[in-house]
Amino acid sequence: MSLSEIVEQVHREMADHIGAGKVADYIPALAEIDPRKFGLAVVTCDGDTASAGDADEPFSIQSVSKVFTLTLALEKAGVALWERVGREPTGSAFNSIVQLEHEAGIPRNPLINAGAIVVTDELLADHTPEQTVEDIVAFLRTRADDPSVGIDLEVAWSEGDTGDRNASLAHFMRSFGNLKGRVEDVLHVYFRQCAIAMSCRQLARAGLYLAHAGTDPMTGERVISEVRTRRINAIMMSCGHYDASGEFAFQVGLPGKSGVGGGILAIAPRQAAIAVWSPGLNERGNSLVGTLALERLGALTGWSVF
Amino acid sequence: MSLSEIVEQVHREMADHIGAGKVADYIPALAEIDPRKFGLAVVTCDGDTASAGDADEPFSIQSVSKVFTLTLALEKAGVALWERVGREPTGSAFNSIVQLEHEAGIPRNPLINAGAIVVTDELLADHTPEQTVEDIVAFLRTRADDPSVGIDLEVAWSEGDTGDRNASLAHFMRSFGNLKGRVEDVLHVYFRQCAIAMSCRQLARAGLYLAHAGTDPMTGERVISEVRTRRINAIMMSCGHYDASGEFAFQVGLPGKSGVGGGILAIAPRQAAIAVWSPGLNERGNSLVGTLALERLGALTGWSVF
Amino acid sequence: MSLSEIVEQVHREMADHIGAGKVADYIPALAEIDPRKFGLAVVTCDGDTASAGDADEPFSIQSVSKVFTLTLALEKAGVALWERVGREPTGSAFNSIVQLEHEAGIPRNPLINAGAIVVTDELLADHTPEQTVEDIVAFLRTRADDPSVGIDLEVAWSEGDTGDRNASLAHFMRSFGNLKGRVEDVLHVYFRQCAIAMSCRQLARAGLYLAHAGTDPMTGERVISEVRTRRINAIMMSCGHYDASGEFAFQVGLPGKSGVGGGILAIAPRQAAIAVWSPGLNERGNSLVGTLALERLGALTGWSVF
Amino acid sequence: MSLSEIVEQVHREMADHIGAGKVADYIPALAEIDPRKFGLAVVTCDGDTASAGDADEPFSIQSVSKVFTLTLALEKAGVALWERVGREPTGSAFNSIVQLEHEAGIPRNPLINAGAIVVTDELLADHTPEQTVEDIVAFLRTRADDPSVGIDLEVAWSEGDTGDRNASLAHFMRSFGNLKGRVEDVLHVYFRQCAIAMSCRQLARAGLYLAHAGTDPMTGERVISEVRTRRINAIMMSCGHYDASGEFAFQVGLPGKSGVGGGILAIAPRQAAIAVWSPGLNERGNSLVGTLALERLGALTGWSVF
Repeated sequence: MSLSEIVEQVHREMADHIGAGKVADYIPALAEIDPRKFGLAVVTCDGDTASAGDADEPFSIQSVSKVFTLTLALEKAGVALWERVGREPTGSAFNSIVQLEHEAGIPRNPLINAGAIVVTDELLADHTPEQTVEDIVAFLRTRADDPSVGIDLEVAWSEGDTGDRNASLAHFMRSFGNLKGRVEDVLHVYFRQCAIAMSCRQLARAGLYLAHAGTDPMTGERVISEVRTRRINAIMMSCGHYDASGEFAFQVGLPGKSGVGGGILAIAPRQAAIAVWSPGLNERGNSLVGTLALERLGALTGWSVF
Repeated sequence: MSLSEIVEQVHREMADHIGAGKVADYIPALAEIDPRKFGLAVVTCDGDTASAGDADEPFSIQSVSKVFTLTLALEKAGVALWERVGREPTGSAFNSIVQLEHEAGIPRNPLINAGAIVVTDELLADHTPEQTVEDIVAFLRTRADDPSVGIDLEVAWSEGDTGDRNASLAHFMRSFGNLKGRVEDVLHVYFRQCAIAMSCRQLARAGLYLAHAGTDPMTGERVISEVRTRRINAIMMSCGHYDASGEFAFQVGLPGKSGVGGGILAIAPRQAAIAVWSPGLNERGNSLVGTLALERLGALTGWSVF
Repeated sequence: MSLSEIVEQVHREMADHIGAGKVADYIPALAEIDPRKFGLAVVTCDGDTASAGDADEPFSIQSVSKVFTLTLALEKAGVALWERVGREPTGSAFNSIVQLEHEAGIPRNPLINAGAIVVTDELLADHTPEQTVEDIVAFLRTRADDPSVGIDLEVAWSEGDTGDRNASLAHFMRSFGNLKGRVEDVLHVYFRQCAIAMSCRQLARAGLYLAHAGTDPMTGERVISEVRTRRINAIMMSCGHYDASGEFAFQVGLPGKSGVGGGILAIAPRQAAIAVWSPGLNERGNSLVGTLALERLGALTGWSVF
Repeated sequence: MSLSEIVEQVHREMADHIGAGKVADYIPALAEIDPRKFGLAVVTCDGDTASAGDADEPFSIQSVSKVFTLTLALEKAGVALWERVGREPTGSAFNSIVQLEHEAGIPRNPLINAGAIVVTDELLADHTPEQTVEDIVAFLRTRADDPSVGIDLEVAWSEGDTGDRNASLAHFMRSFGNLKGRVEDVLHVYFRQCAIAMSCRQLARAGLYLAHAGTDPMTGERVISEVRTRRINAIMMSCGHYDASGEFAFQVGLPGKSGVGGGILAIAPRQAAIAVWSPGLNERGNSLVGTLALERLGALTGWSVF
């Protein structure tokens, strides 16, 4: 089967499942999304592209943004970043604070909320919140090769309304000296990065450098070193799905990062970047149908790293 | 560089590090091992073999055995095994009991002690302890293609002396109904499987089916299905180094399983199986120099899955 | 009202509640107890006695025995006991193992299972298990002034059948060096002390020294020093009802120790010892009607220490 | 000995200890206190008063204020308060957040920081922050019979600077719906109530109603019902010294509440209220010499409730 045929087949196989899962309701602006949306896009290192369903409709990328801010922060801070955040899975939920207390304010990894807040704080150093937000959006526009990528402000404000848990995490780390900026500034940026809206096609294109050793195969531009690319992928594999990361590795076998908006970015190293979107979440907060689709795509392409 | 040259180079590069780390002292019979031992062996799917240092000297494989008993238990019990043990990293130490209390006696994964005890209990169903031990040893002799593989009984008895922590885990799970056999029978088998002695060359050969989609490339024999092979590798990646599994994925980028005897089995899917042995452990209980050697081997071969 | 009238009134007030709660079912021999049993006995420091209901029917004292073994161990080991067990409430269930892992095998207090197992281990030093059991029973016969106090062996064996959780606790502490005896010996004694059968009248009489500064007001005999008596009462107040100890202090205002057989021993310092028995337990494992009865008795007598 | 002689003797016995312990340094304005300060005051239900040392020098009462806001909130909200905060000891440090996550934002008791923040939030309902602060101060002025009681604003501002941990607790509970007010309003009040400055003599006088069944023995005024008085005392006994509450019950045998300013209020029911002040803290954050002084006072007066 060609890539297009495979993508079409996965889409067809999902028909019976579409609508399953529970749309995130704790961010009001997300609760209204149609649960029957489904998009899938694949961009290969050779420049091939295939997509199906609502692959051109923007959705809130939420925590998928953590992969891109991690890329930026590693380029800015280098290995010093690892003094502020670990690289281990937590075995806990995405917004757990328990581990932070036991480990003196150092989050386990940059893909849980606490860790991503530290990463954002790193980006904020020597910048205004507004400038930091602009830099993040500009990076994604360049990576997606599409200037239309932007922030859904309704979602950003909506997060601010319900952001007590993240404020708690931020103050907690600040009490241990592991937050340099003001909590309100860090959260200003954090809520906006989570509210970036992208389509599957844009998201897969934006993540392509992670499948191609850190360079953009379309432009030849180096985004990040090869070693760091591998390490971001390793962290996605270990930690990209919160306390269901082991399950995702087991079922899909690819590095991936999910968001509560129902999107998942998965990387098939040396092959392709894949973005899927289906708003219904499983009980661990990851897209239910999105995970199934990636499992089938992996089986049909043989792209599992294992 | 040829594979042999690469292996030699890694061996040379380790010269400054050999002897670093702390030999496990809680199993008396292991405490006397010379900390300056170092062995490395690679067996490729093409039949190539390369080794260096003490690659032919048997050592106690300890927790590396968990990968092999998992293979046997999956073949025996199928997916029913996953009702008794999870597939997620723990974020905790190898012998932690905290998670078990919070999750009603179901261990997080089969590569921590509690999970491996459940796996052993599964193998014990309908068998005597003696028969179960024989089956495990027979499997490893066949996989290593070497009938000299056996149990170091001094180590097995030595574990029995210090086995209160494992007895505690076993009784704990039994109190939740997640252990069918008698604790003393299960531990009889468990201590013996941990005390199996193998050389790096034997261990790499024995693990080769995990690099070759579940068949032995030398004999063509199918050991386990392709899907299950991928899943065992995924679990090794997520959980093979206890609360340093993320770090191992980050540094080495290969599925691997360590033991407190200082051995590590790493799998480069579609390429090779690798075994390294150096008794000094880092603060998380994994071979310090062994991890360094695998990191260098990965860099020189480009075998990282990421 | 006279003491007899108060006790009668409490009995009458309980009529609507008798039978409430859930009889412990994890010890088979206890599961068959008639849930409508209710006994209440008060013995004052002046020699007054009053009782109601099934106050002369023996029941399994279970964890109430921990107060008496603590008395014996303090006399035997003195302050050295406090190097092996703490004096703080746990905030956790009676059989939790989490705290033990975090605090290196030192149980928080002597009235949870782990702590009582350490206390029993202390009594076992230099004695056979059989001798230790005899000493405990002899102490209770003397204190109850009744040679008919004995062990319900059916219950003792029944505990042995279901004792995996306690075996887990014992092995866990032994792995940290905080158990000197063999696990099977310590549990042999522990299961028998829990299976001692006493009536409310015997139990209140036996506890009278705790209400009278450590001497038996009937015989003048000193059982334990005044300071240690106060401290045992303090520990009963802080820790006597597991993770409902604060609630018991709040509702009843007296030091007390409950057992899963449905018995509670409460001490009104300088006034009286009180024993109540009603097999139905609340969701924290303490006698539901027994607690209500003590609350009413406290209100009518004004014996709350607060 | 007369009460005055006892108080003098305790003061003399402390001479060798004064200055021991470590002054709290995380609130800058408290870090400069002379560690050799020592005050002791006793006010009996009969109107007797005795004091020693720096008993007339105001100090920051800090968490001792939690007893008084609890009194006010119980009068305002009644038993509904107990739907928002529990009555159990935690077994954890004063500012731990772990229990909150496990128990869905309901703090274990009103004498840890999280619980006291909920109590303050209750007082804030239908009031401005300024009015709430005034009400608390007015209550303490009346209870102490001294209009000079006030807030040390330098300390209040100093807490605000270092208040990230408390902000984290407040946002955390708010994310579970267990905080009604705005975090900044609640903390405005909370930091001011902690910064109230009182002398030992004022503090003992203010707490006298807790020793006298809820009425002020000097004026006859009922402050709170007898039942609630007993329950506040019970909570002080179970929870008044964080994870050293059991130890305080064991050593002193009286309900008590400590603050990081080095003050402790202890209640001898039906006898007296006692305030002690010595800034050096033990490793659990309670006044080291203050605890010793109370232990000796208890021994010389025989006021232990046990």
